[in-house]
Amino acid sequence: MLPKGFKYAGVSAGLKDGHKKDLGVIVSDRRAVCAGITTTNQAAASCVKYNRRILRRGKARAIVVNTKFANACVGRQGDKDNLEMAKKTERLFGGPVLTASTGIIGQNMPMDKINKGIDLLAKNLTDNYDDFAEAILTTDLVVKKITKTIQLLGRDVTIAGAAKGSGMIHPNMATMLAFITTDAGISAGQLQRIIREVADISFNQVTVDGDTSTNDMCLCLANGASGARLDKNTLPLFRAALTETLIYLAKEIARDGEGATKLIEVNVNGARSPKEARLAARAAAGSPLVKCAVYGGDNNWGRVIAAVGRSGARFDPEKVKMDWAGLQTKEVTINIDLKQGKYSAQAWGCDLTEEYIKINTKYN
Amino acid sequence: MLPKGFKYAGVSAGLKDGHKKDLGVIVSDRRAVCAGITTTNQAAASCVKYNRRILRRGKARAIVVNTKFANACVGRQGDKDNLEMAKKTERLFGGPVLTASTGIIGQNMPMDKINKGIDLLAKNLTDNYDDFAEAILTTDLVVKKITKTIQLLGRDVTIAGAAKGSGMIHPNMATMLAFITTDAGISAGQLQRIIREVADISFNQVTVDGDTSTNDMCLCLANGASGARLDKNTLPLFRAALTETLIYLAKEIARDGEGATKLIEVNVNGARSPKEARLAARAAAGSPLVKCAVYGGDNNWGRVIAAVGRSGARFDPEKVKMDWAGLQTKEVTINIDLKQGKYSAQAWGCDLTEEYIKINTKYN
Repeated sequence: MLPKGFKYAGVSAGLKDGHKKDLGVIVSDRRAVCAGITTTNQAAASCVKYNRRILRRGKARAIVVNTKFANACVGRQGDKDNLEMAKKTERLFGGPVLTASTGIIGQNMPMDKINKGIDLLAKNLTDNYDDFAEAILTTDLVVKKITKTIQLLGRDVTIAGAAKGSGMIHPNMATMLAFITTDAGISAGQLQRIIREVADISFNQVTVDGDTSTNDMCLCLANGASGARLDKNTLPLFRAALTETLIYLAKEIARDGEGATKLIEVNVNGARSPKEARLAARAAAGSPLVKCAVYGGDNNWGRVIAAVGRSGARFDPEKVKMDWAGLQTKEVTINIDLKQGKYSAQAWGCDLTEEYIKINTKYN
Repeated sequence: MLPKGFKYAGVSAGLKDGHKKDLGVIVSDRRAVCAGITTTNQAAASCVKYNRRILRRGKARAIVVNTKFANACVGRQGDKDNLEMAKKTERLFGGPVLTASTGIIGQNMPMDKINKGIDLLAKNLTDNYDDFAEAILTTDLVVKKITKTIQLLGRDVTIAGAAKGSGMIHPNMATMLAFITTDAGISAGQLQRIIREVADISFNQVTVDGDTSTNDMCLCLANGASGARLDKNTLPLFRAALTETLIYLAKEIARDGEGATKLIEVNVNGARSPKEARLAARAAAGSPLVKCAVYGGDNNWGRVIAAVGRSGARFDPEKVKMDWAGLQTKEVTINIDLKQGKYSAQAWGCDLTEEYIKINTKYN
């Protein structure tokens, strides 16, 4: 089931070669509450800067996404083109419109193709989420999407999420594009708070290569079409469903990291603080040497200790307990008990393979 | 010319396969002043913890190095074995003795071989620096050494340096093993201050893979055998020579990074502070995506901007100036002007290739 009151489209606007889908849109049939998290990169793209203003006001009608041109580091022309993309979408579907771009940095968007593509989106608007989920991919190999329905206040409340990942994936936020729609009734402030908390334990714990992109965002629209207006009893249930959604997408992003053959899940327990738990888990999941060891099927715990050792988490290397599971499968789990305190965290990464090098040597 | 009053040896103690050299020693003919910098990794190896005590006292006679076993994460046995290695060396050459180990984490040193190897070192002590420089290597492909002589106060003052690098190379310190000997006359306090300052602009600006090892150190012995006691006029000249020495070794380490085919030198100018300059340079030199672009001969400046953008350095992406040189050669230079202030820094890295994956998948 998809959230009520949303339509989606994904088309080829001719930006990518070979008629690949490269432009997508999400439209709410009414003005929705919006919330989101944007890259921490200083060189934030035009779309990021533009969205921050809309997110502060907390209302949006649609999200339009192009996945061929990052529209970053292209000066004022980038801001102008981004605004044109937003306004064109607004004329067709209503506003405000959030924008997202990803792809090559430093090249201008071909606005004729973008504008024609947006017209094409309008013609293809349906209840079908798949085209949208496909249109937002770049070097991803598989579509990453999920829907989740829970009963709240006698209504079906649905959350849908689609994400792209692959390269330049590393906390903080600044990690990927993720689009969440829900028909829950919630205030912008509540949604913003929940999204931030949940992103910290999901998207911000994914690492593919340690690079943080100029463009990446998690955007969320909540249009209230379910008829369930969340209250203090139901908010925690909604939060739990959103957490499952985001963690699912985070893992899918790690699993489909550029060149990856294995998903790495790191579970840290016994840390002195939640932050130290997160840092330790991320350092282990992100270490190039750990990633190579996993690729080689080698439970090289010394490399894990060394990675946790530089993470900032306090521990005594003599007391740490560690176990590995699934080393010969496609999902490797590394459990680390720091024996220092009561806090836990998870992080996800992938192995580092020759294919990562190939993809990033040739991509342009 | 080598510094006066030092002898060296490098032998095969049978730790590594194929009679490769794996044990080395530096011995001063008199008690020398010592200074050094040790890894920031929480899981510091036994040798690191042991040396920190000696470095605080500032006097040493010798340095003994094994390059097969990191002797890290092996509990109290590691401390005991390290002490045994130090004491055995001390009986033969005098003390105190600094120790260094690198190699596999989590395995105990075979002390019978170590002890016999130290006896062998005593028999092979010569003025020949080459055997020592060879014995300290692990997956390095080439020896990294340099000697430098300057005239100070009517005397020849010589600095010799040898280093190992390759994998797990990343600031902060915690980056490699480097051994510096000099016959300059200098106090331990002065030497410590200079080493720290110079390491910050040399070894701490080298990044190969973002991992920081449990064992790595830069150790320096100064025995005064030149007869030149440095004063406030000659200290800056000595510092300049030491800077050249350490930057040379830093570049050699980057050039010989695991799997590397190209050295990357990043020059950042126009930063708001020295720290921001260093962070920006390091982020650019260390970005996996930049490293892949260099490997592919692609001057992908967008990836550089994205890397600098997450470094913590303040800048306006629209104002940055960048140029690339030597992209088709073995030494690629990326010059970045942040246009924000007057501070500069350099960093060194290497390209990321399929060979890095191969080395780190199979190494154990």
